[in-house]
Amino acid sequence: MSEHISPQGSAPAFELDSRLETESVLVANLGLCQLRLRNDARWPWLLLIPMRPGIEEPHDLTPLDQALLSFETNLVSKALKDMTGCTKINVGALGNIVRQLHVHVIARNEGDLCWPGPVWGFGERVPYQPDELARLVAEIRNHL
Amino acid sequence: MSEHISPQGSAPAFELDSRLETESVLVANLGLCQLRLRNDARWPWLLLIPMRPGIEEPHDLTPLDQALLSFETNLVSKALKDMTGCTKINVGALGNIVRQLHVHVIARNEGDLCWPGPVWGFGERVPYQPDELARLVAEIRNHL
Repeated sequence: MSEHISPQGSAPAFELDSRLETESVLVANLGLCQLRLRNDARWPWLLLIPMRPGIEEPHDLTPLDQALLSFETNLVSKALKDMTGCTKINVGALGNIVRQLHVHVIARNEGDLCWPGPVWGFGERVPYQPDELARLVAEIRNHL
Repeated sequence: MSEHISPQGSAPAFELDSRLETESVLVANLGLCQLRLRNDARWPWLLLIPMRPGIEEPHDLTPLDQALLSFETNLVSKALKDMTGCTKINVGALGNIVRQLHVHVIARNEGDLCWPGPVWGFGERVPYQPDELARLVAEIRNHL
């Protein structure tokens, strides 16, 4: 039986959207969210995906999950700011293209590519070198 | 004494950034945030500004204020989605230009101006007609 098929009678299982999976790598499983690093060397860019099936908007989560999402988002934001010393964290949940709820946490610096505009939809993703990707994932884990 | 000058010895008072004030109108004071409607007829676009001085990042709020910000953001998101029947809510806290913490809650529809891209920095603000602005503020208040 596939891991994505629920046992009969239980709630549907969480399944990560294939586009999110392809464009990012797993950093850690938090209490509610899968924390992933977007494989895009242009900016340090994290994604939090609540491991709940069928959710598109934060307000569709249960009240407890809404509180957890806020807690985990702020934890990750602070870690990314401490780690990078960036000018500003950009946080957003858009979902216009990929509907599965995912929260972006991005480190921005004055004068970076497309500053002060938003990063979403800007140009093409630039994958990291594999060793740089692994190094960054380890560094983020150390800051959580 | 100006309302923006703190009584001697107390914490500094909250003062709304002048750019946020100019480009939006007050809808309501919630427990933590001032809720404002951006005066931009291109999209239904709300702003939540925590009434705390000197805060730039959500994670710099106290834990209780972080929980309140999440609660009020989700309350407003649900109200805006119910009211507009939009395809997707876009939520974001960027602050690359105006550093005072403010959370955007925007109603997006498939095929709207710049869909599926982000609205921030796109083109020029288009103010509402005054009667339309007043009507919309009243409608939002009714949905909270």
